[in-house]
Amino acid sequence: MSVAVFRWPVRVYHEDTDSGGIVYYANYLRFMERARSEWLRSLGVDQRRLRESAGLMFVVASARVDYLRPARLDDTLEVGVSVRRRARASLTLDQPVHRDDGELLCRGEVRIACIDAAGLRPRGLPTELLAENAA
Amino acid sequence: MSVAVFRWPVRVYHEDTDSGGIVYYANYLRFMERARSEWLRSLGVDQRRLRESAGLMFVVASARVDYLRPARLDDTLEVGVSVRRRARASLTLDQPVHRDDGELLCRGEVRIACIDAAGLRPRGLPTELLAENAA
Amino acid sequence: MSVAVFRWPVRVYHEDTDSGGIVYYANYLRFMERARSEWLRSLGVDQRRLRESAGLMFVVASARVDYLRPARLDDTLEVGVSVRRRARASLTLDQPVHRDDGELLCRGEVRIACIDAAGLRPRGLPTELLAENAA
Amino acid sequence: MSVAVFRWPVRVYHEDTDSGGIVYYANYLRFMERARSEWLRSLGVDQRRLRESAGLMFVVASARVDYLRPARLDDTLEVGVSVRRRARASLTLDQPVHRDDGELLCRGEVRIACIDAAGLRPRGLPTELLAENAA
Repeated sequence: MSVAVFRWPVRVYHEDTDSGGIVYYANYLRFMERARSEWLRSLGVDQRRLRESAGLMFVVASARVDYLRPARLDDTLEVGVSVRRRARASLTLDQPVHRDDGELLCRGEVRIACIDAAGLRPRGLPTELLAENAA
Repeated sequence: MSVAVFRWPVRVYHEDTDSGGIVYYANYLRFMERARSEWLRSLGVDQRRLRESAGLMFVVASARVDYLRPARLDDTLEVGVSVRRRARASLTLDQPVHRDDGELLCRGEVRIACIDAAGLRPRGLPTELLAENAA
Repeated sequence: MSVAVFRWPVRVYHEDTDSGGIVYYANYLRFMERARSEWLRSLGVDQRRLRESAGLMFVVASARVDYLRPARLDDTLEVGVSVRRRARASLTLDQPVHRDDGELLCRGEVRIACIDAAGLRPRGLPTELLAENAA
Repeated sequence: MSVAVFRWPVRVYHEDTDSGGIVYYANYLRFMERARSEWLRSLGVDQRRLRESAGLMFVVASARVDYLRPARLDDTLEVGVSVRRRARASLTLDQPVHRDDGELLCRGEVRIACIDAAGLRPRGLPTELLAENAA
């Protein structure tokens, strides 16, 4: 298990909130995907090229989110990414979301799998994600 | 200009609202697209087959929306579709949104164009959309 | 645990898909919330009135989703709601999503809690949700 | 008309695209709202405080978008904000969206109005937005 953590800042806009005055629960999954995309980019994985040249894409196999405290309009959040488990064709990631004052707002655990875009069957992860030092 | 109007009901859920307590302005475009998709289906246009067999898809070329009154959580809306102008490769549609008590909430005018999915170049509309009696 | 299941149909539109050609993973949580809102309505719970007259609202405390097979544009889905566990101030719901040909696409488990909208503190569930025969 | 232009960068993620492989048309309005929010913040307008202390909020009165070229996954966009017309209770803004190689992808014109959140009636703009040098 990795201690290294990648962090990505996310600002809360009107689009993210609902009439309860807080961030709509599904939108944390959008925030987590932004952070995963930036983490992949930071490791040299270009998702568009991966799709176009190798026919591979990532899909989410499972997601678990515990919502502890709500986020509100204009809040600045930090979304983390760290590898919890690594398999041949999938990664399980911890994705905590903190407010910028350090308060933990939600805990996410997301398993992503690498598949071929045509047949949607499992494929080995790109080599960039197999290295020991991938965050 | 057509008098026939296709109508599609839309319920307002939490996902559609924002912290102002009203439907977020971009979401009316989602509602309008749902109504257009159902209108196309009612005319026999299967967008998925059109893409897979003919390589064609629709894109929005322009959208104009005037927001008159807000919609709120749990409201039931009716989204209209009627053809304002018909060209060889595009259609301009009127898409008013009413609340189910008859109040007009917003007026939309959307121009959709038919293109080939590979090169993104204009293509003639499917024949189902050229008939005089297409709503 | 309940055997009764409430089912709500959901059509997949362009807004729900992503460039992978399948429904974006966060959008299943939107579908599940639509089904929950309709289930609450079917039990006589009016969320807008609950908020305005009693100052109560529901929030999601946790969500677990296992994605088994992808949904695509134009698919018709059925989203289920059944009560798995009932506590004083929260309900744990099973929310499976099937395609209309019976294929199970994803399994969801969502815990919703009742809170006061002002202080965001736990409150007892509305009586409509405490009855044994609430699905 | 103003020549000053505020610019805000937006990265395209999976959530923004649809199965056509391009950014879904409604999502440009989300991008434009992010840029407007950051522009307001840069002028000293705190929307959350404005709502909580003065009971004021902004709503969109009209939006016009011409879609010229599509954006794709991983593209970096720049969303502009400049004042086209200024009235007592509303502002009309130009909101062009460029890709970071300079290509113009769409042109937006959005009129925002200031209203009181309780009665939804027009109110004068905050003084920060009346200054001649507000971009």
